[in-house]
Order: sequence, then structure tokens, then C-alpha cells
Amino acid sequence: MMYCVGVDIGGMSIKAAVVDNKGNVLKKDKVVTDVEGGEDKIISDIGELVLSLVDPNDRNFVGIGIGCPGAINSAAGTVDQAYNLNWTDVPLAEKLSRIINRPIKISNDANVAALGETMFGVGRMYSDTIFITLGTGVGGGVIINNKLYEGNESKGGELGHMVIQVDGEQCSCGRKGCMEAYCSATALIRDTRRAMEKNPDSLMWKFSPTLDEVNGKTAFECRKKGDKAATEVVDKYVKYLGEGMLNFANIFRPQAIIIGGGVSAQKDYLIDMLKDYCKERLYGFAGMPRFDVLTAQLGNDAGMVGAAALIFSEVNASRK
Amino acid sequence: MMYCVGVDIGGMSIKAAVVDNKGNVLKKDKVVTDVEGGEDKIISDIGELVLSLVDPNDRNFVGIGIGCPGAINSAAGTVDQAYNLNWTDVPLAEKLSRIINRPIKISNDANVAALGETMFGVGRMYSDTIFITLGTGVGGGVIINNKLYEGNESKGGELGHMVIQVDGEQCSCGRKGCMEAYCSATALIRDTRRAMEKNPDSLMWKFSPTLDEVNGKTAFECRKKGDKAATEVVDKYVKYLGEGMLNFANIFRPQAIIIGGGVSAQKDYLIDMLKDYCKERLYGFAGMPRFDVLTAQLGNDAGMVGAAALIFSEVNASRK
Repeated sequence: MMYCVGVDIGGMSIKAAVVDNKGNVLKKDKVVTDVEGGEDKIISDIGELVLSLVDPNDRNFVGIGIGCPGAINSAAGTVDQAYNLNWTDVPLAEKLSRIINRPIKISNDANVAALGETMFGVGRMYSDTIFITLGTGVGGGVIINNKLYEGNESKGGELGHMVIQVDGEQCSCGRKGCMEAYCSATALIRDTRRAMEKNPDSLMWKFSPTLDEVNGKTAFECRKKGDKAATEVVDKYVKYLGEGMLNFANIFRPQAIIIGGGVSAQKDYLIDMLKDYCKERLYGFAGMPRFDVLTAQLGNDAGMVGAAALIFSEVNASRK
Repeated sequence: MMYCVGVDIGGMSIKAAVVDNKGNVLKKDKVVTDVEGGEDKIISDIGELVLSLVDPNDRNFVGIGIGCPGAINSAAGTVDQAYNLNWTDVPLAEKLSRIINRPIKISNDANVAALGETMFGVGRMYSDTIFITLGTGVGGGVIINNKLYEGNESKGGELGHMVIQVDGEQCSCGRKGCMEAYCSATALIRDTRRAMEKNPDSLMWKFSPTLDEVNGKTAFECRKKGDKAATEVVDKYVKYLGEGMLNFANIFRPQAIIIGGGVSAQKDYLIDMLKDYCKERLYGFAGMPRFDVLTAQLGNDAGMVGAAALIFSEVNASRK
């Protein structure tokens, strides 16, 4: 049985799992990310972690897939820039292959999650999907015909940095009005706080007694109880997220849009509102293909399973 | 020498050209589009037009490419909906192949222009481009790795229907704030008229003495002469177009964005402003790939040459 190792490099920890070709996690482990140790130390730690999980000479071990934050060049196997690792121009694949001589593929963490969810997660019935992760920022990934689409020099797919409101809220990228500035958990929390300041009687003050305690659930949970200010916050959130999703739908016409990240913990409560919002607004005549809206399901393993999917998607492609 | 016929179906006329594999137009002709005659009459007219240009038994004649307005299913060879032809679910490729038994490929007219400009026009140095046509509406096409990307069921690539201003100007598609509602010639004319109504002293009243005479040049030509109101109209136009282009850049990271359609007649005057606007606003670190901005150059032949490119791009792909 064919298997590979999926590695999920984060600023805090490096996680690795042995994943079979159906996306099952057979074994996993992790180590602390030694950012201060520098690139060679981290790469050596990755090598040790992988070797603790597999026998590098087993013929069924077909490769190592790696998901990494930042700007990656997949074709070159390099990490061009990863701020939270303090990496610039790191030839990750080449250096790791000196430790373990197996096929190594790397990609951006959001891309990897997109591929994992489509090959092995909630999107496995579909060949064309968009993955949107709603966390501190808004990340995204595009799957076209079962393959990850990363854009030229693998620098595309920055779905969160699509402006949907010219001159709107300031985004971390320098522009104003990006989807990230409306649809990240950070933006949701900002809008929740603003609404609370304007509405001292809102139920949200019971759920989160101080502004510091506001989180991505505050507005959602209070909307469920009928709070008016919370309802306005959530409805605005759904509207902006829906508009972004409709944009991707008109550009890519995916079969499904998969929602991940912290805010997706709302599951069907959020998904149903998004479906309602998008239903009548898609461009085109009545016969145009519709898209499904799904909650990501791989959870904490998404990074590792998705990284493994990088290898399996190559293996599958070369067999066609 | 290999050649094919590119057909450009419009609501007014059907144009066809014999195009060689370098994109040269060797011969061309056209007929009036007999919309009232119905689909079979139009298809029969296309057949006659093609046969008047080529010998169907010549082995160098490798196929017929067709660009058609509306919603096309390229894989199926069908026109699912084309309002200005009054067509619904027309099996165009199949019916035409009964008249001329050669490979037939069809696609949407904006897609075809995108492919033509990238294979044979101003974008021929690039493999990854975005084409944006600024006319009555805003059309678009996406070329990924030298191939047309049409989206799932070939219903994607509707670049003009990306909302860049939530709750903004009404768009014909039903949503508000689409790029088309700010960047089409129609939108430019609307904004020019509004500015003239507010500024009775503007030079624009000299260029276009009545609001009915306003066209896509009014604001541009008066900006060139320093008119303040015209400058505001054009600067706003450039800003919205620039924001849309930056969105596509962050999603696809093309090597070049090609501007076509009526407004592109401004050439470098517009292109230079767009380059300036986009220069500092692209997402990512300093090493991220930049994109060039170019004016489409195939002009009136774009539809036919681009349609021919549909065939040549298939031929090239199958040779790889």
C-alpha cells in the first residue's frame, strides 16, 4: 500500500503524518519549530521527524509533501519568503532531499488545505473547487480539474486579497477593501466590537463582557438568540463573504466552495446563510452551473493530509 | 502550410478568415447574420462562408474555430444561450460538422480574443495572461500556460462580473458594484455625463455639446487638455480598472494583462496610468512577480484570429 508523509510547517510546531493514498492518517508526530535555530536546523528537524515515522527505503513510501506558510515557488521547491519562519529564498526541497532522497513537493499552506479537502475531505466528489479559509486572515486555494492551481510562479491564489470594496476597510496588504478586511475572523471581531460600542444594550455584552473578550463566536451566538446588533454584524459578514464567493464563482465556476478556518466552526448555520445569499446572484442564465457550499472537514489534520495530497496528485497525474 | 478558418459570429455579421499557424490572415469574408432565419439558417450560412474560403479536402486545412457571444459549452460544442442570436441549446459544432467534416472548436468571443492576443497578438511573448475588453460591457479571458482557461463547464472567466464595490452601481447582471458597472465604456459615459451635469463650465461641453453626444473619448480627450472634471472622471475610471486588474493579478499572477475593446483606443495614455496605479499595490513581498500592461493589437481581426487560435492551441497541445 502506497503512502507518503505530509508535513505541515507552522510558526509554532512542525507536524508530520504518514498518510495513505485514501487520505487516512496512519501515524503522526510533531516537534517545536526552532525558528531561532535557522533554516538548516528546521530542515534537519523535519528530516528527523520524517525518519522517525517511516523507513526511507520502503518502496511504498512515495514521497514527502510539505505545506508551508508564505510565498512558495512550487516548481523550484523554494520558500521565497515566510515571515513567521524568518525565511527568505530557502531551497527547502533540495536541502531536505539531501537528508531523505525521495520526491518532495512543497506548496503554500492554504493551497495544500484546498487540495487535501478536495482529494480526501468534504470536496472529494468534486473536481473543481475553491477553498476559502477564514482565520486571522483570509486564505484560499483553487483546484481546477483535480489539480492545484497556484498561478504563475505559484504566486497566485491570493483569494483574500481581492478588493470587494474600493476605498473600504484598510487591509494588511496595503490596499483598502480586500475580502480579508471584511471576512477574516479579525474583521469579524472588529465589526463585533464596533457594534457593541454602539449598542450598550446588546446581548453581546453578556457573551463577551469586555471588548477584549470578543471573539469570532460573539456575534454568531448572539444572533442565534435574536440579538439585533449581532444580527446586523453577522448579516454584513455573510453579505461580504457571499459577494467574494460569487466573484470566485463567476471567475472559476467551481462545483463547490469549501469554507475552512476558525469561523467555519459555525458549520451549517453559516453555510445555509451563504447558500441563501448566493442562490439568486450568480451571473448568467438559468441553466448556468450552480455551486455547492461546504464546511471543511479535515480539521487539525488538514495541513498534513493536504501536504500528502501534493504527492498523490502528482502520482495520479503521471498515471493518466 | 497548416491553416484553419476562424469564424467570428456577431449579432450583425458573421466574419470568417483563413488563418495560418502564425496568425496571419490569408483571406477573409463575411455575411449578414440572419437572426430571423433561425439556427439552421445561420449554421448553413457559416458552412457556405467557410466553403467559399477553403477546399474542405485540403489536408493542410486543420479545422474551424468559432467565437460566439453568450454562454458556450466548449467541451460539448454547444451554445447554451446567446441572447443576440436568439439561441438556446444549439449543438453548433455537431450541426456544422455535418456540412464540413473537420475538427470544430467553439468558445465565447471574449475567451477567443484572449487566446488570439496571447498566441498571435501583443501577448505572444507570454504564457500566462489576462485579457480584459472594455466595451459596452466588460469581458475577459484567462490564459494559463498558453491554454484558454474557461472554468468548469466553460462557464467561468466572467471577469467583468466581479464585484469591486459592494452596494455600488447597479450592474446588468443583477448584482451591484461589478467591474462592468465601473469599467465598461457604458459606465465611463455615464460618469462623464454625471460630471458634465455637475460642471457646466467643463471643457467636456465643448467636446460633446449635448449629453447624447458623449462617448468614451469625451473625458479622456478633455483630461489631456487639463480639464479638472474630466480628470476626475478618468482618474476614477483608472482607479476602478486598476483595482480590478490587481484582483486578477493576486488571483492568477499573470505575466501580462492585455486591455482591449473601445476604451483601449487610448493606448499608452491609458496603459501608463494603469501601470502607475498598479505598480505599488500588488500583494506580496518585493520579490513577487510583476505584470506588464499591454494594449490589444489584433483589432477587427481579433475574433477571427482568436477563433483560429482555438484550433492551433489544440494542435500544439497534442504535439507536446
